[in-house]
Amino acid sequence: MADLLWPGDARGGDHLTDASFLQAMVAVEAAWLDLLGIGHGPLPDLDPTTVSSEGAGNPVPGLVAILRERLDGDAARWVHRGLTSQDVVDSALMVLLRDAVSAVGRELRTQVGLLADLAEAHRATPMVARTLTQHAVPTSFGLKVAGWLTAVLDADDDLMSLSFPVQLGGAAGTLAAVVELGLDPAAVRDRLADTLGLAPSLPWHTSRAPVTRIGDAAVGCTDAWGRIANDVLTLSRPEIGEVSEGEGGGSSTMPHKRNPALSILVRRAALAAPQLAATLHVAAADSADERAAGAWHAEWATVATLVRRTVVAGSQATDLMGGLRVHADRMAATLDAADVGSEQRSMAELAGHEPRGHFRGASDEIIDAVLDRARRSLKREEDA
Amino acid sequence: MADLLWPGDARGGDHLTDASFLQAMVAVEAAWLDLLGIGHGPLPDLDPTTVSSEGAGNPVPGLVAILRERLDGDAARWVHRGLTSQDVVDSALMVLLRDAVSAVGRELRTQVGLLADLAEAHRATPMVARTLTQHAVPTSFGLKVAGWLTAVLDADDDLMSLSFPVQLGGAAGTLAAVVELGLDPAAVRDRLADTLGLAPSLPWHTSRAPVTRIGDAAVGCTDAWGRIANDVLTLSRPEIGEVSEGEGGGSSTMPHKRNPALSILVRRAALAAPQLAATLHVAAADSADERAAGAWHAEWATVATLVRRTVVAGSQATDLMGGLRVHADRMAATLDAADVGSEQRSMAELAGHEPRGHFRGASDEIIDAVLDRARRSLKREEDA
Amino acid sequence: MADLLWPGDARGGDHLTDASFLQAMVAVEAAWLDLLGIGHGPLPDLDPTTVSSEGAGNPVPGLVAILRERLDGDAARWVHRGLTSQDVVDSALMVLLRDAVSAVGRELRTQVGLLADLAEAHRATPMVARTLTQHAVPTSFGLKVAGWLTAVLDADDDLMSLSFPVQLGGAAGTLAAVVELGLDPAAVRDRLADTLGLAPSLPWHTSRAPVTRIGDAAVGCTDAWGRIANDVLTLSRPEIGEVSEGEGGGSSTMPHKRNPALSILVRRAALAAPQLAATLHVAAADSADERAAGAWHAEWATVATLVRRTVVAGSQATDLMGGLRVHADRMAATLDAADVGSEQRSMAELAGHEPRGHFRGASDEIIDAVLDRARRSLKREEDA
Amino acid sequence: MADLLWPGDARGGDHLTDASFLQAMVAVEAAWLDLLGIGHGPLPDLDPTTVSSEGAGNPVPGLVAILRERLDGDAARWVHRGLTSQDVVDSALMVLLRDAVSAVGRELRTQVGLLADLAEAHRATPMVARTLTQHAVPTSFGLKVAGWLTAVLDADDDLMSLSFPVQLGGAAGTLAAVVELGLDPAAVRDRLADTLGLAPSLPWHTSRAPVTRIGDAAVGCTDAWGRIANDVLTLSRPEIGEVSEGEGGGSSTMPHKRNPALSILVRRAALAAPQLAATLHVAAADSADERAAGAWHAEWATVATLVRRTVVAGSQATDLMGGLRVHADRMAATLDAADVGSEQRSMAELAGHEPRGHFRGASDEIIDAVLDRARRSLKREEDA
Repeated sequence: MADLLWPGDARGGDHLTDASFLQAMVAVEAAWLDLLGIGHGPLPDLDPTTVSSEGAGNPVPGLVAILRERLDGDAARWVHRGLTSQDVVDSALMVLLRDAVSAVGRELRTQVGLLADLAEAHRATPMVARTLTQHAVPTSFGLKVAGWLTAVLDADDDLMSLSFPVQLGGAAGTLAAVVELGLDPAAVRDRLADTLGLAPSLPWHTSRAPVTRIGDAAVGCTDAWGRIANDVLTLSRPEIGEVSEGEGGGSSTMPHKRNPALSILVRRAALAAPQLAATLHVAAADSADERAAGAWHAEWATVATLVRRTVVAGSQATDLMGGLRVHADRMAATLDAADVGSEQRSMAELAGHEPRGHFRGASDEIIDAVLDRARRSLKREEDA
Repeated sequence: MADLLWPGDARGGDHLTDASFLQAMVAVEAAWLDLLGIGHGPLPDLDPTTVSSEGAGNPVPGLVAILRERLDGDAARWVHRGLTSQDVVDSALMVLLRDAVSAVGRELRTQVGLLADLAEAHRATPMVARTLTQHAVPTSFGLKVAGWLTAVLDADDDLMSLSFPVQLGGAAGTLAAVVELGLDPAAVRDRLADTLGLAPSLPWHTSRAPVTRIGDAAVGCTDAWGRIANDVLTLSRPEIGEVSEGEGGGSSTMPHKRNPALSILVRRAALAAPQLAATLHVAAADSADERAAGAWHAEWATVATLVRRTVVAGSQATDLMGGLRVHADRMAATLDAADVGSEQRSMAELAGHEPRGHFRGASDEIIDAVLDRARRSLKREEDA
Repeated sequence: MADLLWPGDARGGDHLTDASFLQAMVAVEAAWLDLLGIGHGPLPDLDPTTVSSEGAGNPVPGLVAILRERLDGDAARWVHRGLTSQDVVDSALMVLLRDAVSAVGRELRTQVGLLADLAEAHRATPMVARTLTQHAVPTSFGLKVAGWLTAVLDADDDLMSLSFPVQLGGAAGTLAAVVELGLDPAAVRDRLADTLGLAPSLPWHTSRAPVTRIGDAAVGCTDAWGRIANDVLTLSRPEIGEVSEGEGGGSSTMPHKRNPALSILVRRAALAAPQLAATLHVAAADSADERAAGAWHAEWATVATLVRRTVVAGSQATDLMGGLRVHADRMAATLDAADVGSEQRSMAELAGHEPRGHFRGASDEIIDAVLDRARRSLKREEDA
Repeated sequence: MADLLWPGDARGGDHLTDASFLQAMVAVEAAWLDLLGIGHGPLPDLDPTTVSSEGAGNPVPGLVAILRERLDGDAARWVHRGLTSQDVVDSALMVLLRDAVSAVGRELRTQVGLLADLAEAHRATPMVARTLTQHAVPTSFGLKVAGWLTAVLDADDDLMSLSFPVQLGGAAGTLAAVVELGLDPAAVRDRLADTLGLAPSLPWHTSRAPVTRIGDAAVGCTDAWGRIANDVLTLSRPEIGEVSEGEGGGSSTMPHKRNPALSILVRRAALAAPQLAATLHVAAADSADERAAGAWHAEWATVATLVRRTVVAGSQATDLMGGLRVHADRMAATLDAADVGSEQRSMAELAGHEPRGHFRGASDEIIDAVLDRARRSLKREEDA
């Protein structure tokens, strides 16, 4: 864990650490032994620092060597037979990614609820809309929040469409060893997927869309949260003061200061995530032969870092949304003082009537439509 | 066009040029006038270099000024009323992106056909599988092509799921001007979308998933083609010689040389695309207020370059696949000379039988499954 | 030119266009003919769209074919002999990059002068310092500008350290053709560099630091300007109002609005530049053999776009700095109203004395040191 | 440490871990107490997981709170007084980066020696040059290695030009607290720099070139090594077989296989590094106010990961170069069989003489020039 270099990292718990990666790889090997019908006791609980990974370029040969030493008889003889390193690494990572994405999904659903409530509560809280940093026209805080909610729902849609395929191809994606051992390739693939809770799949050794899609969806989340954090950072500037973070963080030298620490850390994640997803695409584009020499290896830490940070940022974003304080009086005062009637005047003149009492346009209909989408989304996911 | 700095760019035709962008913006303004019921002749055909874009930070105010000069009476008075610059820019870009993505889709479908034929034709053409650059086990060229086809089908799935929403929010996403003008916001939104061939949508001024999804899907395509190009580049090395490009390109100083020019140019696109998509995410994450100050502006040329290059690379990839020459004799010779029986021997020993005649595993079933997916995909898209 | 998709692009003039690239390639061929002692008239002025670039993967074979057609006798027979495509492309690009970087350097020097004057003029203009968006302690606008100036000087240092090497290696970096033709390789290399105004260099076909350094230095510039634009965007928010752009841009629907258009466009460039430089590094890292298959090709448009945009952003940044309006009254009012004495009180208490009259610390010394650095930098560059 | 997700990470030792970051921050606080003339015992050795970092957005307030608890009397009262969090974080990171860059520099110098020897030993070992994957003309392995050496020397030049500035600005870069405490700002800045082994510097809170330059130089290293790894990966393909890694890594299922594991892991690092450096630039461009809200925070883990991986890749690259086996017989056989005389024939014909005995051009002069540069570089660094 790197909580000092990436404050808040501890929120990521065991997601996508070396230790959980090792555990998942052992789980794949255990599932495979079961599938081969080979009896074995509990596989050993290993210390990640004892597994050699560099010599072979990946940790599986080192892990298998230890397992062969520690297991007895048939289990020692049969462990890993029919698999290749990539089957174990890819399947184990997919198990971890599925769990981490699931944690992100839970945050998103909590956020949908929080933002829906906030949009409803403030649908008629007037504030000034700002475009290109300048005062534009009147809007409501509820409509702004409906925009945040839209972004969160978009992110959730992408996340929900992800799938986490098992990898089972053998040495070069032909499943030749599996067939040589007399197994039915389609049947073992489906059973392995089922045991690990992954989606059945043909081998995808060098077709890396399953990985890039996860990366892209993770960045979709940090994009949505980053934009919300930006708004909070702007609106909580003392000169604006229209919202503030629930608590805020202290300063090491200025006792009076309250910093919008959660927004800062969320924005941080949003700045760093896109480049990690780009690395996954560079790796996918560099895939080659029946196993890529370097591109595959670049994926593991990259996707692990990206998705773990997404778990962290998601949790921070939930806290940010849940604790947000809205200062409707400051919003009203700013709007009153702002000269934002010019569009309305020119439209009214054009239409040949006096400007109407308000200029909120379709705000209510838009908020209603977004809230309706939120309800359907939550319902759909409950049903799933 | 930048055909010298980006060879092959001319294949992009009019997709996403300044001129077509201008035309699309004019089409949005025309559709809006129609929707307001304002009669007008054909809107003028303008020279992109006459439209000022820098003063306002975007080209719409400059365009509207020209239109007001060139149009008469009501048309001059009503042009653009109720819209904001972002409505015009975003909707126009979506029109162009829809057309360009559609062109990419056509390439993908052609490629699915070409690769399906190639996989079928070579399902039993033996070759050596290479992992981490080294000879691994036997495989067939058909199975390799089935892997390429899988990547192309994955890219197509992502592309087909894209949607191209109209933008109509007015000054700050409230549609206030539209309401002030006495129009029904939902109705005009739907009619504008319909006229432009875009998807109806609530305003998405600062929720930029529609743009990042297009970027990600475009990179999904270049990833798939890049991986195919990598294989061709390796397999057409003279020492390997298992495939070659149909024609190949000449050298300026070495008369004997035939270079795999299409593969080179496709790989080039695949190396450059991920970072462009990352920029779209950085911009999405930097969105703020009711219109972002810089992040929105960073999108236009970035997504235009990325998607135009995807059109170009798609066309080059189709030519590459269509012209590929397969040298089955060289494949056979390499496989015969290779020492790739070790896995089979150890599996057979483990299973207690002699090694079987071949070691192709589930290759046929995998090829069949991929071909079946290809047929269903083509059928689904024909039906659509 | 893409002035609609990248507003302000026209400021880039002829820098790094297809047309100027073609002209530079012709200049390289002409210089080579001269060096071979082959008489020739003026080489033809060609239309970039007539030069085929895709077939060979680069534009040189197409260009040479045209030149051979258009030139007479010895010139037709000798044109390009001894060179390879990469010699022409790399040298031509270096000529263009040198000119564009030189244009950026001129902007930087103008900016150093503008910012030095601004820092001096406002060294005692009090304002509140903001950290993490919140009011921190008092500072002066002059000290803020000294910070801007430091960033500009840093960028200038990096830019000034660049070198633009000639490329002359022949088919594979051995200069074998040159030697076969009886020429002295070191002598022709130096003479070609001299004629083109480039630095003499050993072949660097696959050692791409000359390109990545230019990219990194360009991003160093947009980083510096982006940070200044950020400050202007924040400080020109109506609630803060401490600075404003000289003119500002208009809105297409809100007659009252003045947008900070230059800051917006500069920030845009700063968001998009880092990923372009990253692509140059991805390409450099993918270099291979004696000429890379795709990585080299990915550089041309990428570095051209990056550096041309740097020219544009530099010119916009100069206008931004030159036109900036400083509202000292608003600065003073904000500072007076802010509660920023807590650090001073705690320090004074700790030191056992009453808080002193002001709390500007070493502002004057820092401003002096930065101004001194600015003067030395301008002097050094005048001397050079 | 993440040795399973990033095989070889253990080579990074204590560089840039959370624990060493904490230790360096404590060292900054201790140096500051010394500078204030406050007596104190050894500062406590803390467990990184006990220091809270998220509440304040950075670890310094949490660290200072612990130090105040653990220290006595004056030390407790004076610890951190006059500093701000950014002074401690930035200075501590610079200490760690200096040490890590120094470790990279040692690898580079070893590599310069290894490659110089290799270039000398093989200056006349003939092999075929490959451009765009195809056979081009004859070259020598020594000349290829001279190209590798050039890239390594370029990387070393950039690394050697780095500087590691102390950060000392107080709350907002004015050094006001320092002055309030009665200290001489220039003097304490220089003394703090001296104690920590950093370069004296004006505050650079929001001018982030010191960080981006380190990132760019690190990527310059991985670019150079990546290109060498690419060549080894290609040349060690069994069909080519002109070089091989000293040992190579095993396979988990194919007993016969030897994989070029070091090259694979070096290439991996080269694929992932550019995007990390881009994030540092995105952060630099997003700097704002007197301390950035998120951009600053995005730097720490990013630069730590990037530079630690550079240490790892540097060590792996040294092993790769030191263990490389050169198969001159295979090189000669490939060259003999290749049809690479066409350029020579056309040049000789043009020059009106018979082709000369060899076609190595200026290879020897180039090798000599690179070796001379290598010697001067090693000498200069010894002297430094």
